[in-house]
Amino acid sequence: MKPTVDYSLYLCTDRELMTSATIEECVEAALKGGVTVVQLREKSCSSQEFYEIGKRVHQITSAYHVPLIINDRVDIALALGAEGVHVGQQDLPCHILRPLVGPDMLIGVSVSTHEEAVQAEKDGADYIGVGAMYATQTKTDAHLVSAKELKLIRQSVSLSIVTIGGMNRQTIAHFKNTGVDGVAVVSAIVAQENPEIAARELLSIWKS
Amino acid sequence: MKPTVDYSLYLCTDRELMTSATIEECVEAALKGGVTVVQLREKSCSSQEFYEIGKRVHQITSAYHVPLIINDRVDIALALGAEGVHVGQQDLPCHILRPLVGPDMLIGVSVSTHEEAVQAEKDGADYIGVGAMYATQTKTDAHLVSAKELKLIRQSVSLSIVTIGGMNRQTIAHFKNTGVDGVAVVSAIVAQENPEIAARELLSIWKS
Repeated sequence: MKPTVDYSLYLCTDRELMTSATIEECVEAALKGGVTVVQLREKSCSSQEFYEIGKRVHQITSAYHVPLIINDRVDIALALGAEGVHVGQQDLPCHILRPLVGPDMLIGVSVSTHEEAVQAEKDGADYIGVGAMYATQTKTDAHLVSAKELKLIRQSVSLSIVTIGGMNRQTIAHFKNTGVDGVAVVSAIVAQENPEIAARELLSIWKS
Repeated sequence: MKPTVDYSLYLCTDRELMTSATIEECVEAALKGGVTVVQLREKSCSSQEFYEIGKRVHQITSAYHVPLIINDRVDIALALGAEGVHVGQQDLPCHILRPLVGPDMLIGVSVSTHEEAVQAEKDGADYIGVGAMYATQTKTDAHLVSAKELKLIRQSVSLSIVTIGGMNRQTIAHFKNTGVDGVAVVSAIVAQENPEIAARELLSIWKS
């Protein structure tokens, strides 16, 4: 059965930005701080290494009953028995994924327009990551999404929505009354001196 | 049902080395020349682009009734309905793959020792690519396999075997009486002025 997901605080990992010694430490600290979803993103390691890292991270997320989402690599998600997979507009098309992963795996799609959002819903996505809301150093090529477009996206689909791109302690409050389900962060957790405290503070701001 | 495969002349693509304008042209010329297996290898494009290229190449290989094998990316192989997937020692472990791809998809594994060959057979591989037989520019980090080790590999497993690494018009004759099923080539076809003629000549030498 497909898990019910609390999208409030969605962590995307980035080993290059993280302050922790290992990805496991980083993820566990964030989980202690309250992140509700973990997406593992690895763009420059071998498939075997991605799989080995994924196995270790999945043990940790499972202990916290938090879904693990694998970025792009559907085969790694399947091999791990991860709870979900997340694809961008340059990854495998969503309509191809659903038959490959079965009915229960979560599929997330990155979108920056309401047309892409509608397409993702049509193609069987469970949630969308909408962004980038602000310019960031994590993703320098990202298309910026206006407040107006976000509103249109929210009106266009019934999918769960997380906003991404520049989400931090200063910005997330702006999205609390926009009807989105949560915020996705990278550096606001992984690049902080104490990822656990950073996560706890973000969650507290989001829930207040 | 798993296809019966003629491994005689196994083409591995490489867009960086090819003389043809497009990968489709390159593959079709090689097929006209008689290659019996095509492996599509893409290491530096997006998943979407790999999938789109794979769709076009699969149409061509299917027209020639030649199996298409996808390098590393099991998800792309599944999405395409390709006939096989090929993994190296740094890719997803073979024993993880079989449950993901089902009983009918071909699985190939790169090995350079008889221990790896035995493991591949145990893990459910259909064939192994043994190499590198010679140092090449295509794969500069490859471990070289001696004639003695190749003999030991042939004695250790009943899997189909193709040799790879430095296979060309001069070298392939040395492998005709070693009990291997075929030879895998990259530049000896794709980097030649006329890939069709190059393939025809290689096949003729191998079969003579």
